[in-house]
Amino acid sequence: MGPEIQELIRLIGKLPGLGPRSARRAALHLIKNKHNLFKPMAQAMQHTLSVVRECNICGNVDTQDPCALCQDPRRDSSILCIVEDVTDLWALERSASFQGRYHILGGTLSALDGKGPDDLRIGSLVQRVAHSKINEVIMALNATVDGQTTAHYVTERLHPTGVKVSVIAHGIPLGGELDYLDDGTLTTALNARRELNAQFT
Amino acid sequence: MGPEIQELIRLIGKLPGLGPRSARRAALHLIKNKHNLFKPMAQAMQHTLSVVRECNICGNVDTQDPCALCQDPRRDSSILCIVEDVTDLWALERSASFQGRYHILGGTLSALDGKGPDDLRIGSLVQRVAHSKINEVIMALNATVDGQTTAHYVTERLHPTGVKVSVIAHGIPLGGELDYLDDGTLTTALNARRELNAQFT
Repeated sequence: MGPEIQELIRLIGKLPGLGPRSARRAALHLIKNKHNLFKPMAQAMQHTLSVVRECNICGNVDTQDPCALCQDPRRDSSILCIVEDVTDLWALERSASFQGRYHILGGTLSALDGKGPDDLRIGSLVQRVAHSKINEVIMALNATVDGQTTAHYVTERLHPTGVKVSVIAHGIPLGGELDYLDDGTLTTALNARRELNAQFT
Repeated sequence: MGPEIQELIRLIGKLPGLGPRSARRAALHLIKNKHNLFKPMAQAMQHTLSVVRECNICGNVDTQDPCALCQDPRRDSSILCIVEDVTDLWALERSASFQGRYHILGGTLSALDGKGPDDLRIGSLVQRVAHSKINEVIMALNATVDGQTTAHYVTERLHPTGVKVSVIAHGIPLGGELDYLDDGTLTTALNARRELNAQFT
């Protein structure tokens, strides 16, 4: 099939979620749609490659530094949302439920993967909180063991700054059926119950 | 995230097997591995795009026309294997069990998708068989309804050339357990049974 095609398949196979078989199918799909997909994608890759950069303030990826979110004057600079990764920021932005600023850690602490505090953007977070007018830091890390361990560690590191630290709620997801949820979620949801008739008093 | 990144995600999402979510993850993976994946892939795409072409004889994709398989003097020109698509050719080549030449139909007849004989490379197949010294045509189409319908149609079209037409065996796949296989496969396998002790007589 030619060494160029083989090399392309090899590289596509390195993308997350794509094995050798789906990489072959993707490459062939590109070749078959040369003008309406392959060419635009090759150009989009070259273009994105040349303009993409990491925001020095929050760690987001964008075509400008500081990123559009850090530059947006309409966003509330006094609330900072801490997320593990850019995909989490994108997910929160899609929900359009947060109007403050972000700080991306770049992963979680993980003894298994040998990831320590210096591998995450924790130092820059502490600096940022210490030197800007931030009233609240929201921990929006994944509800995994690593995510929660990291949240606790970051909270400790932020303690000297005196900032208020909150965490997003854990519980039954919307549309979730109790019978299908794991014990951990049910326990968390039960323990985090709130008074329902309090609002009527 | 910048319009360039959004465009790249949109295009990646058009690849088979990738939804919007996996497209976002793939794009982010590229951005994060700028030097060891993104740059090589952008270059491989540009490069492949400029050199890839379709073989005018068999329909294979390669960087040369006729393709390497059609040019290879060690392959047997008297046996032609008919496959639906390039991925099928690749699969057979990986098995290294066929040393003849190929002819790619480019799909199957499909009333639902509005694909008729003129949309497939059937005319060029008949021409090829009529004008070259071909002793046997092997139908290696998928064991689907559309695949088998197409095999029958192609066989009919080849009838005037007088060439011998065979079909690859259908039955229990190697390692297959009867309890897990569908009724159709079991029926086919039973009907296509062959005498086992005949070899000892």
